Amino acid sequence: MRLSAVIAMDAADVLAHKRAEFELPPDTVYLDGNSLGCLPLSAKARAQQVIEQQWGRDLIKSWNVHQWIDLPVCAGEKIARIIGAGPGQVICCDSISVNLFKLLSAALNMQPGRCVVLSQSGNFPTDLYMVQGLRDLLGAEHCQLQLVDDTQLEDSLTGEVAVLLLSHVNFRSGLIYDMHRLTQLAHAQGILVIWDLAHSAGVLPLQLDACDVDFAVGCGYKYLNGGPGAPAFMYVARRHQDNIRQPLSGWMGHKAPFEFYPYYEPADGMSRFLTGTPPVLSMSVLDAALDVYADVDMLQVRAKSLALGNLFVTLVAQSPVLTDLVLDSPANDTCRGSQLAYRHPDAYAICQAMIAHGVIGDFRAPDIFRVGFSPLYLRYQDIHHSVKVLEELIASDTWREPRYQSRGKVT
Amino acid sequence: MRLSAVIAMDAADVLAHKRAEFELPPDTVYLDGNSLGCLPLSAKARAQQVIEQQWGRDLIKSWNVHQWIDLPVCAGEKIARIIGAGPGQVICCDSISVNLFKLLSAALNMQPGRCVVLSQSGNFPTDLYMVQGLRDLLGAEHCQLQLVDDTQLEDSLTGEVAVLLLSHVNFRSGLIYDMHRLTQLAHAQGILVIWDLAHSAGVLPLQLDACDVDFAVGCGYKYLNGGPGAPAFMYVARRHQDNIRQPLSGWMGHKAPFEFYPYYEPADGMSRFLTGTPPVLSMSVLDAALDVYADVDMLQVRAKSLALGNLFVTLVAQSPVLTDLVLDSPANDTCRGSQLAYRHPDAYAICQAMIAHGVIGDFRAPDIFRVGFSPLYLRYQDIHHSVKVLEELIASDTWREPRYQSRGKVT
Repeated sequence: MRLSAVIAMDAADVLAHKRAEFELPPDTVYLDGNSLGCLPLSAKARAQQVIEQQWGRDLIKSWNVHQWIDLPVCAGEKIARIIGAGPGQVICCDSISVNLFKLLSAALNMQPGRCVVLSQSGNFPTDLYMVQGLRDLLGAEHCQLQLVDDTQLEDSLTGEVAVLLLSHVNFRSGLIYDMHRLTQLAHAQGILVIWDLAHSAGVLPLQLDACDVDFAVGCGYKYLNGGPGAPAFMYVARRHQDNIRQPLSGWMGHKAPFEFYPYYEPADGMSRFLTGTPPVLSMSVLDAALDVYADVDMLQVRAKSLALGNLFVTLVAQSPVLTDLVLDSPANDTCRGSQLAYRHPDAYAICQAMIAHGVIGDFRAPDIFRVGFSPLYLRYQDIHHSVKVLEELIASDTWREPRYQSRGKVT
Repeated sequence: MRLSAVIAMDAADVLAHKRAEFELPPDTVYLDGNSLGCLPLSAKARAQQVIEQQWGRDLIKSWNVHQWIDLPVCAGEKIARIIGAGPGQVICCDSISVNLFKLLSAALNMQPGRCVVLSQSGNFPTDLYMVQGLRDLLGAEHCQLQLVDDTQLEDSLTGEVAVLLLSHVNFRSGLIYDMHRLTQLAHAQGILVIWDLAHSAGVLPLQLDACDVDFAVGCGYKYLNGGPGAPAFMYVARRHQDNIRQPLSGWMGHKAPFEFYPYYEPADGMSRFLTGTPPVLSMSVLDAALDVYADVDMLQVRAKSLALGNLFVTLVAQSPVLTDLVLDSPANDTCRGSQLAYRHPDAYAICQAMIAHGVIGDFRAPDIFRVGFSPLYLRYQDIHHSVKVLEELIASDTWREPRYQSRGKVT
């Protein structure tokens, strides 16, 4: 495909104007927004305001004057609109891992006589590790982890299973799991479902309420652009909220936190899922970053995400020098999120060489070069440029240079 | 005491130069550093650097290039030096509440046949709430909370008790508990001890190793000036580290987090106490704030803290118009931390009027006006000024104005 055709796609892009709302790294094409999103100008401005005005000058008064105390709910409601959740069901707090522990504990407690947590064998490790931690704490008679391949998933939804824990989009391949269908199948067996939205919130047109989802967790720092290690979020369907308690019952989840009662009484609604004092700086920045989504139509985001991904796939497939890159993501674009995984025996070195040449993707052990597409700040010409760089590095064997081979810490 | 005498105290203050390392609110005396510390210039500079350079430009590469991955250990080691802990025993993560859950679970698991967690009835609520959450999760046969008054504390250290959970400094009164003695008495009964250092880290010359402490948690946003909701820290004595696992076993605590293994294996040392991805922005700012302590002698901090507190006590006691303020902190200064609690039936209104007149203390239900002294940025003349303002407000009945009466949210 000629560059002029790609530039024409940018000219017709209905989301093109959103790019100006980000501060983007110079001379770089950033294909890792699925790992850490770029800096929204709104977040940069808020960070300065929180540091200089709110912390520096107003100090403790800011809990009220600048509504720090409302941040978990305020940011949660902004996320709710993005993931198809009505008000009062999403709150922002802690990390995905910690929030999963709360939900797993609560969900297992709602399922007397059942103790199996079923999940994908290819799920993101922390999801599985949290089940293992809970199992070690409670004992195998109260919590067991069952891992199955995708092909066995539906058949494994039996009356033995207490909780189905699924990542909506696989972190490696980008494979989408059918939220509506799997939730229905699980419910038919009396199974509660927890969805991990780490790789779908902010880039797929989710409909949590319409899919009758029970619980969900998700990430603030990927497509939602909330900054490194931004707080996570959790969703609890309103029908469950009053019936459940979670074990990380810290003071921020108390009905009257500033009365300092010695005995815990959970707050009404989602606030009972809060634990300790939130990291205000990180949460404020996430809250501001979410304003980028205020005027965004998620269907347009999805359409552009697919178009960006398909352009990448097409350009790689058309290149005679890229035949060693094997697509490990679903070929059918409706089955994949906003990322592509390519297998290559030297994926690590290729990824490092790409980074050194200004195209940022990431490596996932053992042999995956992964690229992600954030539709709010990527252009079609960026995709074109990325594949050109990839072709040049492979054609010239540049990636074989020793400096690209040594494995350091990777994220 | 005359102002000239107080100004002479400032002139002789060996810590006076530290004040220039903070950005302080104008026209304000801030006596709430025990709740939220002021903004260090080092933290302000780091925030800008993290936002603009590390996130904005270097993005995902910053995990390695700017050592985001090392932040929990790096900040933890800086805190270790402040609290009398040798290297490899402190890590920075999550909130006090979440960290208490990890330690309570781990400690109870180390005490087969015992299930009682003993604590102070006046302990900070979240500490007690976390025990209650764990009890509800595990059942009363595995976890029970026993609350006792201070007078009963030593007699309650029996062979029935698994874990002694104590705040080192009471959040209301400032009463210090004898860390060395209580830890020894507990150990004599085979009890493990968790100390909450929220109101002592950064202002008292702690000696965790020398006191043979088992576990501790503490707060980054009070005397350590790490910013609103800064991440907390936890201490685990080296002798315990390899023997225990904690249930919030997220990917950051895995031995090889970036290998993405499906089964959890804890990292060596303190890293096994990590859970999810840390809030990098908040943790970076805390890390930079801790540099303020690099050249500080904690004995000098304690000496100034006592002198500031004693000056406040003396000036209040000498004032004929402040007789309704009843000191609720220990009269013996060696028994109290760096804060003072005064009871007054109208403490709330007095606190609000003080705030409106530029002296920031805080209110603690039901009737306490609390002031804290951060020796790194407070001057003796600030204490003199604060008591003058208090005298004027009380003498003039200004605090009775309706605008100071209405209770909003307080922190």
